[in-house]
Amino acid sequence: MAAVVQKYGGTSVGDIEKIKNVAKRVAKRKEKGDDVVVVVSAMGKTTDILIDMAKQISKDPDRRELDMLMSTGEQVSIALLSIALKELGYDSVSLTGFQAGIITKGYHTKARISDIEIENVKKHLSDGKIVVVAGFQGINEEGNITTLGRGGSDTTAVALAAKLGCTCEIYTDVDGIYSVDPRLFPTARKLDYISYEEMLEMASLGAGVMETRSIEIGQKYGVPIYVALSSEEWPGTYIKEFDASMESNVITGLSVSDDDMMVTVNRIPYKVGNVSMIFEKMASKDVNIDMISQTAPSHGYVNISFTAPENERYVIEEILEEIKKELPEIEIDMETNITKLSVVGIGMRSQSGVAAKMFKIFAENGIAFKQVTTSEIRISYTIDTRDKEKAIVAIAREFNL
Amino acid sequence: MAAVVQKYGGTSVGDIEKIKNVAKRVAKRKEKGDDVVVVVSAMGKTTDILIDMAKQISKDPDRRELDMLMSTGEQVSIALLSIALKELGYDSVSLTGFQAGIITKGYHTKARISDIEIENVKKHLSDGKIVVVAGFQGINEEGNITTLGRGGSDTTAVALAAKLGCTCEIYTDVDGIYSVDPRLFPTARKLDYISYEEMLEMASLGAGVMETRSIEIGQKYGVPIYVALSSEEWPGTYIKEFDASMESNVITGLSVSDDDMMVTVNRIPYKVGNVSMIFEKMASKDVNIDMISQTAPSHGYVNISFTAPENERYVIEEILEEIKKELPEIEIDMETNITKLSVVGIGMRSQSGVAAKMFKIFAENGIAFKQVTTSEIRISYTIDTRDKEKAIVAIAREFNL
Repeated sequence: MAAVVQKYGGTSVGDIEKIKNVAKRVAKRKEKGDDVVVVVSAMGKTTDILIDMAKQISKDPDRRELDMLMSTGEQVSIALLSIALKELGYDSVSLTGFQAGIITKGYHTKARISDIEIENVKKHLSDGKIVVVAGFQGINEEGNITTLGRGGSDTTAVALAAKLGCTCEIYTDVDGIYSVDPRLFPTARKLDYISYEEMLEMASLGAGVMETRSIEIGQKYGVPIYVALSSEEWPGTYIKEFDASMESNVITGLSVSDDDMMVTVNRIPYKVGNVSMIFEKMASKDVNIDMISQTAPSHGYVNISFTAPENERYVIEEILEEIKKELPEIEIDMETNITKLSVVGIGMRSQSGVAAKMFKIFAENGIAFKQVTTSEIRISYTIDTRDKEKAIVAIAREFNL
Repeated sequence: MAAVVQKYGGTSVGDIEKIKNVAKRVAKRKEKGDDVVVVVSAMGKTTDILIDMAKQISKDPDRRELDMLMSTGEQVSIALLSIALKELGYDSVSLTGFQAGIITKGYHTKARISDIEIENVKKHLSDGKIVVVAGFQGINEEGNITTLGRGGSDTTAVALAAKLGCTCEIYTDVDGIYSVDPRLFPTARKLDYISYEEMLEMASLGAGVMETRSIEIGQKYGVPIYVALSSEEWPGTYIKEFDASMESNVITGLSVSDDDMMVTVNRIPYKVGNVSMIFEKMASKDVNIDMISQTAPSHGYVNISFTAPENERYVIEEILEEIKKELPEIEIDMETNITKLSVVGIGMRSQSGVAAKMFKIFAENGIAFKQVTTSEIRISYTIDTRDKEKAIVAIAREFNL
């Protein structure tokens, strides 16, 4: 029998009425004859409220205990959704992360799924039950409850779909993937399809709808991911393997992120290992580095710039202070008032000239950029945030987004 | 090294400030050099709020899912308390029911502890940690989260103390065990000691401070239980094995309960198995029957009366309707306006005449009673609730309570 994993986010289960509505949608899907696994997030702002309680006790609450605390949010949601499904006459069972066999490794509050022992989920499905799984959480090898960090419920859903070999439907408060965030460019087009590769680039650049990790898992295991509204029946967007049937604009989308800051480290002694040490230390603290640019060495020194999430500033500062002890010559500069713009498109592979077009747009509009980085299917720029709107409109018009 | 289990109830951890205060008390105990295990309930009215959410979805929410839902309450408390302990500089670890190895059997929402796999708790203690355990919850052999019903956190605490071979301290919003509920008889004496047997009788008769089950476990495994205020340092009451050093009033206490109703079943055909069938069916639905009285058979029929918690009325009615199908002659009567009064005292064993004194008190004060039942160390009466105050004052004065 075919199966499907559906995921409903926090706003979709924000109150009792919404939970009842989700139950009706899930029931409708079950009526089609498929096995249904539902992954839910914590209700509305629950996670924030729980974190706030912890912060009233400690400025820097222990992360193992934060996971213990936060994981209750999803546990409440799954119990209520399962009650709602039974009330509609459907047999269902709720499972916490550990009951669903979601094994994780890595740091508390940002653990990663290392495996799913899927037998319990499968057993309940074969008993005809709708299986309601707590998103965002798992258990590590020491038996501690862990959470998966931002977008964790999506990760849970896609990983379950990978293990079950089925489609994953992500129901959320946006009705699909747009070429540009419609809040920034209201006439943006909604895409029917987007490839994993493009979506990965968009997501890692702050496209907001989904986190990188869940898309990576989707790509790795070939899980078709469908993103749509939880409140309406409008068609959404499929994220799947690129194929010829998908329309091939040169540029599929434009990502815009204000959540990053740009860190510049100047006067790094040009010696094997110095630059790599910086990034190793960042990685060891799980800092998400993006857009690294390095100039050619000059007078025995190199300069590097990179972007990283602004909310990791504190950790980054700590690491740089530590590095300054070893390399006292370095000069550190942080700019928070920057915007990262990226154009993404599989079409770039076969059509050159995108970079040239982009430089022309910036020049014509008098926009200075601070960094440029490129990959096979994207080009990213950091610009001053005050130039953001002007840049978005110019790029979206040029590439018909 | 000596160990202690401390339990703090819902009002003691009712808000963030109270949790911080509990952390300070626990820390002080740890400073004495003992291994400390802390059992906590859900914060304040959390459990009620969760149940209310479930009832907004279903009049009769699935009990497995209710357990899934309710157990989050204690999980929030343990995480916050552990964060508070770490903030004070004490190493601690929070454990849910399943992480603490609390194995249960029986019905959801009123499961019983069948065993505790104590290794994980012991490991953390031997690492020098304060171990914070979620009360009220466990896991059954099918891997489902269960809750232990009323007084479940006390049960968790005493069972852990039994397994660790140590004292159990119950911190609550009453400052000890009184001979009579001080709200009913303000000059009642606080007891320094009470025996398990007496406390069991008092508790099963509605003395409110502790549920029967936790005292039974305490008695079975010889766990000294100390009941005291969580907010002050006043001395409380020890519940322990009776010994000669304990003062031996004839009557230790008077229990009063308005939470019961009296069920009378008349015209039961006098045939082997009929009466037992009634109680078997009640037992199979976990109805807590107390005070059974049966008159001698007459004209081929017997009449029985029994008391049971008023909040189980719905289940009892269902069962009696079922029985009426098999024995259509029976007549059923339910009285809810009754009060159960019980005098309890190990002294009764050696001193006769308590029953006689009681009958005299009732007669002198013009109080009619509906049922009398006796055990080795207690005598219980059901009376009309309107006679309650008069009876309490007369009995308390007579026995110097």
